[in-house]
Amino acid sequence: MAARGQVITCKAAVAWEPNKPLVIEEVQVAPPEAGEVRVKILFAALCHTDAYTWSGKDPEGLFPCILGHEAAGIVESVGEGVTEVQPGDHVIPCYQAECKECKFCKSGKTNLCGKVRVATGAGVMLSDRKSRFSINGKSIYHFMGTSTFSQYTVVHDVSVAKIDPKAPLEKVCLLGCGVPTGLGAVWNTAKVEPGSIVAIFGLGSVGLAVAEGAKTAGASRVIGIDIDSTKFDIAKNFGVTEFINPKDHEKPIQQVIVDMTDGGVDYSFECIGNVSVMRAALECCHKGWGTSVIVGVAASGQEISTRPFQLVTGRVWKGTAFGGFKSRTQVPWLVDKYMKKEIKVDEYITHNLTLADINKAFDLMHEGVCLRVVLNMHV
Amino acid sequence: MAARGQVITCKAAVAWEPNKPLVIEEVQVAPPEAGEVRVKILFAALCHTDAYTWSGKDPEGLFPCILGHEAAGIVESVGEGVTEVQPGDHVIPCYQAECKECKFCKSGKTNLCGKVRVATGAGVMLSDRKSRFSINGKSIYHFMGTSTFSQYTVVHDVSVAKIDPKAPLEKVCLLGCGVPTGLGAVWNTAKVEPGSIVAIFGLGSVGLAVAEGAKTAGASRVIGIDIDSTKFDIAKNFGVTEFINPKDHEKPIQQVIVDMTDGGVDYSFECIGNVSVMRAALECCHKGWGTSVIVGVAASGQEISTRPFQLVTGRVWKGTAFGGFKSRTQVPWLVDKYMKKEIKVDEYITHNLTLADINKAFDLMHEGVCLRVVLNMHV
Ligand SMILES: NC(=O)c1ccc[n+]([C@@H]2O[C@H](COP(=O)([O-])OP(=O)(O)OC[C@H]3O[C@@H](n4cnc5c(N)ncnc54)[C@H](O)[C@@H]3O)[C@@H](O)[C@H]2O)c1
Ligand SMILES: NC(=O)c1ccc[n+]([C@@H]2O[C@H](COP(=O)([O-])OP(=O)(O)OC[C@H]3O[C@@H](n4cnc5c(N)ncnc54)[C@H](O)[C@@H]3O)[C@@H](O)[C@H]2O)c1
Ligand SMILES: [Zn+2]
Ligand SMILES: [Zn+2]
Ligand SMILES: [Zn+2]
Ligand SMILES: [Zn+2]
Repeated sequence: MAARGQVITCKAAVAWEPNKPLVIEEVQVAPPEAGEVRVKILFAALCHTDAYTWSGKDPEGLFPCILGHEAAGIVESVGEGVTEVQPGDHVIPCYQAECKECKFCKSGKTNLCGKVRVATGAGVMLSDRKSRFSINGKSIYHFMGTSTFSQYTVVHDVSVAKIDPKAPLEKVCLLGCGVPTGLGAVWNTAKVEPGSIVAIFGLGSVGLAVAEGAKTAGASRVIGIDIDSTKFDIAKNFGVTEFINPKDHEKPIQQVIVDMTDGGVDYSFECIGNVSVMRAALECCHKGWGTSVIVGVAASGQEISTRPFQLVTGRVWKGTAFGGFKSRTQVPWLVDKYMKKEIKVDEYITHNLTLADINKAFDLMHEGVCLRVVLNMHV
Repeated sequence: MAARGQVITCKAAVAWEPNKPLVIEEVQVAPPEAGEVRVKILFAALCHTDAYTWSGKDPEGLFPCILGHEAAGIVESVGEGVTEVQPGDHVIPCYQAECKECKFCKSGKTNLCGKVRVATGAGVMLSDRKSRFSINGKSIYHFMGTSTFSQYTVVHDVSVAKIDPKAPLEKVCLLGCGVPTGLGAVWNTAKVEPGSIVAIFGLGSVGLAVAEGAKTAGASRVIGIDIDSTKFDIAKNFGVTEFINPKDHEKPIQQVIVDMTDGGVDYSFECIGNVSVMRAALECCHKGWGTSVIVGVAASGQEISTRPFQLVTGRVWKGTAFGGFKSRTQVPWLVDKYMKKEIKVDEYITHNLTLADINKAFDLMHEGVCLRVVLNMHV
C-alpha cells in the first residue's frame, strides 16, 4: 500500500488500434481523485463486449484503450470523500454504476444509473474528463468505466461493489458481467414463474446462466437452441431439458418451437446478438402473454423487426442490461449466493491463463468448447 | 319474438366486393343453432377495422360479407344450450369472445379467447362452419363474429355480453370496440400509475379514450400528438394537457418529445396504425422503464423496427387487443361505469345516421371532425 497517492506503474493489455493484437505495456496509473477508487485487479475474465469493441465494429470504441469489465480485485487506495470502500476491501468493478441518487437509481424501475455515464462513455473519469492511464505521458482511454485488463485500474466509487473477503476472486470475477446478466434476465426482467416453458437462443455463458435462472425459477421445460451442438452436453448441467439445432430443421425455428409447445413458449431469451434470431425469439412466444427478452448485443446499426400484430396479440418485447441487477447492492448478494452454493460460477470457467496470454484468450472465445477464460493478472 | 326458430328477413348492408359501395339488401338470417344467439341490432357504430376490410387491403377479408362490430341490441332468440342470455336481454356483441374455458381464458394473462376464432376468422359459425346469412340462397360471410350492419345477426354465445337494460343502446353501442380499447390500453395493458407522463399518437376515438384513461389513472402530463390540429380542441375535454403537431417540427417527433420531458415519457400509445409512428412511440419512451403500447392496426404485411439497444436499455414494447378487457365479464362493468358517469361515451358520437346512410357514414370517417358515427338500424 506504499503507493497510495502516487502513480503506479504496472502491466496492462493495451488495445492500440482496432483488430490488432493487444500489447502488454508498462502503464502509469494515476492515483484516484475525489470519488474514485484505485483497484488492484487480481483476476479478469473476457466477455464478448470486449471483443466487439476491440474488433473496431463499435462506432463508439475509443483507441488506444484498456479493455476488460468482468473482474475482481482489492482496493489499493481511495480518493477524497470515498466512504463505502477502503484499502484492502475485496471488490468487483461494475460497468453498470449505481449511485443511489440519480433519477434512474431513485425510480425503483431500473438498474441503469445516469451518474457517470457521460464520462464512462467517453473513456474518461467524471471529475476532470481525463484518463488516469498513460504511457510516458500519452493518455490511454478507459473502457466501460472499468478497464480491468490492467494490474491496477481506477474506477468511480459508484462503480465498485464490496464483497465478502472470503470469496475466491478467481471465481467470483465472473459475477462482474455474464453470469448476473443471464440470471437477472430471468429473475428481474422476465420474472419467470414456476411451470413456465422457456426458450433460450444461444448457449454461451449468458445463455447457460439464463438456463440456471430458469431452473431455479421452477420452469417446467427449458428449450436450448444453438447452431453448435457441442454445447448441448454441458447445457444439461445448467438446466436445459431439450435441445434444438436450427440446422436440423427446414422450417423457421420459431415455427418449430411453436409446434413443439402447443402454441409457443411463455418466455424466450436471445443470448447471441443476432437481430434475426431476436425476431425468432419474439415470434416463438405464446400468443396472449409470451414475453421475449433481448440479452445479446447486436452490432451497431442493426435493427430488429416484426409485424406489429405479434404485439397486438399479446406478446411483449423487452431487453436487459446486466440482468436488471443493481450492481453495488446486488453483486455482493450474488457473491453470497455463490458462497452458499445456490448459484454456479466455477462451471463457466473453461480456461485459466495469464495476462501475458490475453491474445490467446481472445482466440479461445471463438471456440465452441470455451465458455469463460479467466486471466491471472499478476503472474 | 314470433320469428323464433324461423328465418328472419331483414335489411343489412352487404359488402359485395372490396371498395365498392355497400348495398342495403333484404337478407335471410337463419335461426341460431346450438350455442348461438340471434340479436336484433338497434344501433351500430363504424370503426376503422370495418373500413379496412371493406377497402380490400385486408388479405383475410372475405366477400360478400356483412361488416360491423361495434353495436348494441336485444336478444331475439337463442339456440339449444344457451344459458347466459335469453330473449329480451340487452346485449353488446363482442368481436373478442370470452368462453371462460379455453387455455387463453383460463390463463389469467390475456383477454384473447381461442374458442371460436377458427370460425370467426373464416366468416362462418363454429358448429357447422356455415354462415347464417344468405340472400336468396347465396351465402354471405360473417365478419369478426359480429356482423352488426344487419338488423338481425347471429353470434356465438361466447361473443355476447349481457348489459344493464336501462343503458341507452344508442350510446353504449360504442362500448363494443373503440372506447374500451383506449381505456383498457391504459388500465390493463400499460397499467399507468399516478404521476406518469403519457404520450398519445393519434387523437381519434381510440386516442381520446386513452387520454381519458390516462387522466383517470392520475397521469401528470398527457401529451397528444396529431397531424390534424383540429383535434386539439376536443382533446382537451378528454384530458390531453399538451399538444404537438409533428408538422410544426423539423426534428423527429421522438426527439421533440424526449426534449420536452427530460428524457422521455413513461408510457406511450400508438392509436393510428402507422408503423413509423409505432417506432417513434417506442423511441420517445424514457430509458430504463418507458413502455410503449401499440393500439393502432397497421396494414397487412407492414413491419415495425427499431434498434435492439432501445429495448436493452429498458424500454418495453407491447400491444393490446380490445384493451385487454375480458369481453363478457367486463363490458357490462364498463356499461355500469358509464351509467354512474365515471366514463364518457356520448362525447365520442359526432354523427347520428341511419342504416340507409351507411356509405355516407364511411365517407364521414375520413373527416377530421368525425369521431364516431352511430347508425339507427331500424328507421
Ligand atoms: N445485455 C447485457 O447486459 C449483456 C451482458 C453480457 C453479455 N451480453 C451479450 O450476450 C451475448 C452472449 O454472450 P456469451 O458470452 O454467452 O456469448 P457466446 O459467444 O459464448 O455464446 C453465443 C452462443 O450462441 C450460439 N449461436 C451463434 N449464432 C447462433 C444462431 N444463429 N442460432 C443459435 N445459436 C447461435 C453460439 O454457438 C454460442 O454458443 C453477446 O451478444 C454478449 O455481448 C449482453
Ligand atoms: N388494438 C385494438 O383492439 C383496436 C381496436 C379498435 C381500433 N383500433 C385501431 O386504432 C386505430 C385508431 O382508431 P380511431 O378510430 O381512433 O381512428 P381515427 O382515424 O379516428 O384516428 C386516427 C388519428 O390519427 C391521426 N394521424 C394520422 N396519421 C398521423 C401521424 N402520422 N401522426 C400523428 N397523427 C396521425 C389522424 O389525424 C386521426 O386524428 C386504428 O388503427 C384502428 O384500427 C385498434
Ligand atoms: Zn460483458
Ligand atoms: Zn444513479
Ligand atoms: Zn373496432
Ligand atoms: Zn376462451
